[in-house]
Amino acid sequence: MGELRYIAVNEIEDKKINIFGRLGKVRQPLPLLFNGSAVEVRINGSELWIDVETDSDFHEPWVAYELNGAMMGRQMLLPGRHRICLFRNMDPGTCKTVRFFRELQAMSEDDRCKVLVHGFELNGDFQEVTKLSRRIEFIGDSITSGEGSYGAVTDTDWLAMYMSASVNYATMTAKELQADYHILSQGGWGVYCGWDNDPRHNIPKVYEKVCGLVTGPLATELGMDEPYDFSSWQPDAIVVNLGTNDITAFSQPPIVNPEDGLTYKQRVNADGSLNREDELKVENAIVAFLKMLRKNSPKAHIAWCYGMLGSYLNLTITEAIAEYRKETGDNNVSFFQLPNTTMETFGAHMHPGKKSHENCTAALVHYLREKMNWF
Amino acid sequence: MGELRYIAVNEIEDKKINIFGRLGKVRQPLPLLFNGSAVEVRINGSELWIDVETDSDFHEPWVAYELNGAMMGRQMLLPGRHRICLFRNMDPGTCKTVRFFRELQAMSEDDRCKVLVHGFELNGDFQEVTKLSRRIEFIGDSITSGEGSYGAVTDTDWLAMYMSASVNYATMTAKELQADYHILSQGGWGVYCGWDNDPRHNIPKVYEKVCGLVTGPLATELGMDEPYDFSSWQPDAIVVNLGTNDITAFSQPPIVNPEDGLTYKQRVNADGSLNREDELKVENAIVAFLKMLRKNSPKAHIAWCYGMLGSYLNLTITEAIAEYRKETGDNNVSFFQLPNTTMETFGAHMHPGKKSHENCTAALVHYLREKMNWF
Amino acid sequence: MGELRYIAVNEIEDKKINIFGRLGKVRQPLPLLFNGSAVEVRINGSELWIDVETDSDFHEPWVAYELNGAMMGRQMLLPGRHRICLFRNMDPGTCKTVRFFRELQAMSEDDRCKVLVHGFELNGDFQEVTKLSRRIEFIGDSITSGEGSYGAVTDTDWLAMYMSASVNYATMTAKELQADYHILSQGGWGVYCGWDNDPRHNIPKVYEKVCGLVTGPLATELGMDEPYDFSSWQPDAIVVNLGTNDITAFSQPPIVNPEDGLTYKQRVNADGSLNREDELKVENAIVAFLKMLRKNSPKAHIAWCYGMLGSYLNLTITEAIAEYRKETGDNNVSFFQLPNTTMETFGAHMHPGKKSHENCTAALVHYLREKMNWF
Amino acid sequence: MGELRYIAVNEIEDKKINIFGRLGKVRQPLPLLFNGSAVEVRINGSELWIDVETDSDFHEPWVAYELNGAMMGRQMLLPGRHRICLFRNMDPGTCKTVRFFRELQAMSEDDRCKVLVHGFELNGDFQEVTKLSRRIEFIGDSITSGEGSYGAVTDTDWLAMYMSASVNYATMTAKELQADYHILSQGGWGVYCGWDNDPRHNIPKVYEKVCGLVTGPLATELGMDEPYDFSSWQPDAIVVNLGTNDITAFSQPPIVNPEDGLTYKQRVNADGSLNREDELKVENAIVAFLKMLRKNSPKAHIAWCYGMLGSYLNLTITEAIAEYRKETGDNNVSFFQLPNTTMETFGAHMHPGKKSHENCTAALVHYLREKMNWF
Repeated sequence: MGELRYIAVNEIEDKKINIFGRLGKVRQPLPLLFNGSAVEVRINGSELWIDVETDSDFHEPWVAYELNGAMMGRQMLLPGRHRICLFRNMDPGTCKTVRFFRELQAMSEDDRCKVLVHGFELNGDFQEVTKLSRRIEFIGDSITSGEGSYGAVTDTDWLAMYMSASVNYATMTAKELQADYHILSQGGWGVYCGWDNDPRHNIPKVYEKVCGLVTGPLATELGMDEPYDFSSWQPDAIVVNLGTNDITAFSQPPIVNPEDGLTYKQRVNADGSLNREDELKVENAIVAFLKMLRKNSPKAHIAWCYGMLGSYLNLTITEAIAEYRKETGDNNVSFFQLPNTTMETFGAHMHPGKKSHENCTAALVHYLREKMNWF
Repeated sequence: MGELRYIAVNEIEDKKINIFGRLGKVRQPLPLLFNGSAVEVRINGSELWIDVETDSDFHEPWVAYELNGAMMGRQMLLPGRHRICLFRNMDPGTCKTVRFFRELQAMSEDDRCKVLVHGFELNGDFQEVTKLSRRIEFIGDSITSGEGSYGAVTDTDWLAMYMSASVNYATMTAKELQADYHILSQGGWGVYCGWDNDPRHNIPKVYEKVCGLVTGPLATELGMDEPYDFSSWQPDAIVVNLGTNDITAFSQPPIVNPEDGLTYKQRVNADGSLNREDELKVENAIVAFLKMLRKNSPKAHIAWCYGMLGSYLNLTITEAIAEYRKETGDNNVSFFQLPNTTMETFGAHMHPGKKSHENCTAALVHYLREKMNWF
Repeated sequence: MGELRYIAVNEIEDKKINIFGRLGKVRQPLPLLFNGSAVEVRINGSELWIDVETDSDFHEPWVAYELNGAMMGRQMLLPGRHRICLFRNMDPGTCKTVRFFRELQAMSEDDRCKVLVHGFELNGDFQEVTKLSRRIEFIGDSITSGEGSYGAVTDTDWLAMYMSASVNYATMTAKELQADYHILSQGGWGVYCGWDNDPRHNIPKVYEKVCGLVTGPLATELGMDEPYDFSSWQPDAIVVNLGTNDITAFSQPPIVNPEDGLTYKQRVNADGSLNREDELKVENAIVAFLKMLRKNSPKAHIAWCYGMLGSYLNLTITEAIAEYRKETGDNNVSFFQLPNTTMETFGAHMHPGKKSHENCTAALVHYLREKMNWF
Repeated sequence: MGELRYIAVNEIEDKKINIFGRLGKVRQPLPLLFNGSAVEVRINGSELWIDVETDSDFHEPWVAYELNGAMMGRQMLLPGRHRICLFRNMDPGTCKTVRFFRELQAMSEDDRCKVLVHGFELNGDFQEVTKLSRRIEFIGDSITSGEGSYGAVTDTDWLAMYMSASVNYATMTAKELQADYHILSQGGWGVYCGWDNDPRHNIPKVYEKVCGLVTGPLATELGMDEPYDFSSWQPDAIVVNLGTNDITAFSQPPIVNPEDGLTYKQRVNADGSLNREDELKVENAIVAFLKMLRKNSPKAHIAWCYGMLGSYLNLTITEAIAEYRKETGDNNVSFFQLPNTTMETFGAHMHPGKKSHENCTAALVHYLREKMNWF
């Protein structure tokens, strides 16, 4: 075989690389901003390396990679520049497809956390990759961040290593449907508030930025805090998996928001039902978020898909969708309940484990095939 | 062993017999009016026979029986009086529990169809049965009638033998939850209209009679057309599995109702969405039905459980539930989506097969355990 | 539809009927001698009845029937002549295939037990059935008699109703391989002796008669005690599932054989291993039986398939097969271990339940496909 | 938390470390010689690193690690010294168990390949680990080396990354039985000869050395070529999974052994059966190997467990076991057929995939529980 050559990401022709996940203006080095954010290439040659730069404070990024669609490695990356061998000594005559991806969600709690792909070293040539014409955007919370998809059932620390894109209904669904995907998710956040009643932890607030979950100098440097250019990637379907933290807030103590000094608390009635005023806060947030999604993706089917950790909010979410339909006349929206996680399918942290993600994938793939006519 | 003795059903002490399914005034012979309607006894002795009388025209009743909870026999009964051996030559010293039940739904299309249990012959004694304190009422269509739960995938005749209570999520759910149950269901019917737009084929119309599905002399003779005494059996939970025929009507041709000479047709818009006026007809029917259920069962949790043949009507049903909640302030109602049937889980007739009923049972049992605190 | 016409079994052209199971000289009425013994017809018309005569003492026969390959009914038949409706009111324009079969094994303990098919009534015409060119003979004990395939896990009576051909790896395997089959099995019997050390209860002794399991006047009348004409049906594969009772005998008390007044007991050594002398009795019986099978079926592949209730006798059986190969030079024989039954897959009576029969079927089908080149 | 401290492996008290896999005289640094060879510690503290040294030529070692029994990371290690973070930022107050293990088999084709554990860095203290009193030795070929347990079904390169101990019936079985284990396996090798007829590739030849699979200076340096001290670790059960390559040799072309210049070829007869002379070579090798195993492990139960890639050699293996029993009178040996791999359960390379290893584990665990009385 020939010598290894170094090729920067931006030197690769578009038709010879697939990039998964939202991008802002910075493309070189290529930032992998979200869990599931990935770069995929197809090469002949016997050897392939990737050149990655990472940084972090408390929550170090984890990455993983697939060879020809099969999971091969998964590891922690501590701050620094990394030269990782993705394969070696392979038959140079056949084409190999490699997908390298970020396991860890965009970290709202670690402003230094980053994964940047600088380039590749290889002794073959890049080939044309399979371009995926179907597009799905997944928006969610810890479930979509794959929290607890790794780890023992008894593990309860809240750590980067328990989250993933490799054991995750979103990536599994996209793969089975042969779809390109974006993921935007954050553990603990809701559509109206976080699991602990924190009103700042709502996804809509950050949705229209490239990666509004991260703030600080890095966010500015990588353009994460700029408005996202939705025209650059229009999804066919948007899967919104939010609500699990909004319902949790009803059973949590009040919280004081340091930004305004006010106390926030979602209340329940004496009979256990939701306080109507507070339920309507969630509904209003849903209605507003649906309008925001529609504004940015005029043609996408919006499927609110909820239920992997209980379906308590079914009637709240659907009432909001009904209100949205009334206000806008927009019928290109649906509600689909995902299979619940049971004692047999929990992973770590009382979050969905691999089997639960697989069950959800089967149901969601079946649903989207019919709804989107994706056969 | 001693000689066989004949005991009429009404000679058995209440604590020594379990009767499943709605009853009117006629108790001797005991009519099994619905699929799943059953009589259960527990005896020692070596031998047990049941004395059954049936009639029918086109749709002959099928019956089945379990021994100690395990399915043993299933057969067609043509018109006449039948003496059926439920077991023989068993160890007289141990107690055996036998449940004998109707497989076929109440037949709105066969006014002669009936199953009457006159009594038992046995050489032992009746023992106290296990009384079930949990109570579930199931209200549904062909899915709850077990249509296609028997038969080859390719079978398409619409026949009594393809329906069952033995392979049926309703009876399976009740068994797993150790619950007493009532079933009221009719293939092809909806909450507003039948699959073919027939406005007469709605369950609410017949719900308040003992068995309003059947008309004619037999109905009068057995008291099926009398008002049902809801105070005689108050459910803890009501599972309503309706909507599948209401959505089908939108894609079917118009029908002329011979009763009023008018034409009925649920319409779709050009973009495939439901005509709002017609959608509201379904929603109004749901709201009215929920009120009817609440009137008759003031304390029951009402769970609308839908989705075994697609979840197309999710937003319609839930909007109606939201309206019902607004109008009544009643929050003791929920919506739960059941797992859909797939190519791998279809039975005959493009209806749920055994595997689909099992999947649904697992999900519904899990849901009701949490919702009803039934652990 | 036309009137019902009566057709005796022997009036049906060969190409329009499939008969499963061994037959002797008596063909009219057609005796169903073993579990799985069946008659299959294919007709148009809307209605089909079967005319069956049965007798029994303690162990009444059970029968079952399939419509288009799907199980439809299963019932006990007490002594007498029975006219059983197999279907009615079906679309006369389509062809229906019906298989009617005996659930209960040939009963060595009930000399009156019989199932005779006299004929059919129908309003259509018999059509050509699908002839099956692959042929498998199954020889076994209670496992192959489907003992415990019906009944609750806790049931322990030894009764006809717990045995079946409907939930049985033998019929399931044949169906999946689209094969014609014979079954010859007897609960409690072995290749050398019965589970209780009774040396009379060995299958080889009765194998060469039509149905040597049954004795007495009925056996004579139906020709069951005559030599079986092996040339009438040559199998491609013989599956021998024996050994489970032979190993059990080693842990059971001695028995006195009333025929010779001698005491019989298979012994174990102090270390728990099998007494070599007694182990060799089993091995000699296996060698002799293999020779008997080969004599009668010169071309069949003989697969000794064992292990559904433990694989304790693996080394004994295989040592005997090695001896057989040495003595005869015949290599057309193999040993295949079947999946064991676990706590999760037991049926009644500590015998394989449905799930165990399904597991076994999957493994055996896979094995026979490769071995027989049946793809 | 306190500062990180460095502790060499040999500074850890015996009761605070579990070492899996054979060891020779070299213990510091600790060589992980086989796939599944592992070091396990239990610590409090928030952070743990491992200090590993590796080398290789063509076949680079892969390693993996579990946290509290759950798989966390898997990666390639290229030649050099590696400081790998196993966890960080965890709750210092709770105990964490970490197992770090070699994925790649001992490499007979890469004499430089090694994995040496020098020590750990941690900010907590080592705690007592759970000592496992049951001991299983697994001896096998590519199946036991986990070949194809990683990789896409279509992958056919023969590479280190496709082998594993993490997806492997041997480690899974040991884990479920809570057993300590040794693994000694080599892809392509048999009990008599390799898949390609190479007579040098037989496991017995290397079995009595510490790690006789590796030769050259490294083997000498690490003491791999010294006699293994069997008294240091006596297994309760020995699982021999060999035979798959021996049967393959019968269908492969002849090979010339460079050591003696002779041609080797296992032959089949015209009818497809095995040439008796060659079959006996395999049998003699089995008999001799059983004697070798018994000599070194006088009390272990020896279970020959075979069949994950077909059971073609069942009668050959069992005939040899019978011969062994006859020659030695040793009955503490058994034969157990493992579930075959099917189209649904293949991994890469036409080798068992994860599902096949899981199926095998379930069967083998069930078997060993009964056989060893391990409940």
